[in-house]
Amino acid sequence: MKSINLSEKFKKFSDLWSPKVIAEMNDYQFKLVRVAGDFVWHKHEDTDETFIVLCGELTIKFRDRTVTLSKGEMIIVPRGVEHKPTATAECQIMIIEPKGVVNTGNVGGVLTAKNDEWI
Amino acid sequence: MKSINLSEKFKKFSDLWSPKVIAEMNDYQFKLVRVAGDFVWHKHEDTDETFIVLCGELTIKFRDRTVTLSKGEMIIVPRGVEHKPTATAECQIMIIEPKGVVNTGNVGGVLTAKNDEWI
Repeated sequence: MKSINLSEKFKKFSDLWSPKVIAEMNDYQFKLVRVAGDFVWHKHEDTDETFIVLCGELTIKFRDRTVTLSKGEMIIVPRGVEHKPTATAECQIMIIEPKGVVNTGNVGGVLTAKNDEWI
Repeated sequence: MKSINLSEKFKKFSDLWSPKVIAEMNDYQFKLVRVAGDFVWHKHEDTDETFIVLCGELTIKFRDRTVTLSKGEMIIVPRGVEHKPTATAECQIMIIEPKGVVNTGNVGGVLTAKNDEWI
């Protein structure tokens, strides 16, 4: 039951596409991620997923549209919807989703990150 | 499935202690709130509650401590824990909690806000 400073937490890691857990609310986790370049097309069949941009610019490609988010903007990606996050320059985001969600969803692959990496 | 700009959303209301819903993720809601002065002591027996400070400074009193949060800081208040939010100057916050949670929790009273006020 203490305050969590998001900027201070970002200083604790530098790897890309590797979500770090900073807090849990019930069975949901708040994860910080540094992203740059292209992630993989994937979806999460069982849950919506929230992205909040804290620094930089994040683009999320959907099969039928592309949405670009700047600092101070967020989006909810509905369950079952394929998406591909991408960022031309390094971007800092917070992801909120149920505990146990795998970052690469249904596809796996080399960008699959270990879960429950707390910082 | 579109971007939500938090600053733009705050321009849509000015009342205090009256959460406005901006997004839903599964059965959780993201709510923006303007706060100033003292809220009431209360607790939520069935859920944790997340506060993220987007502008200004929020103080949350607990029975055994006081935590002050600045912009870019967050806290999870565990279920069942009495707390009293307060702000000396107007502060903009985001609350994340399950749909249906009443702002005044177990105590009710004049500061009880209507739920599901979308902006």
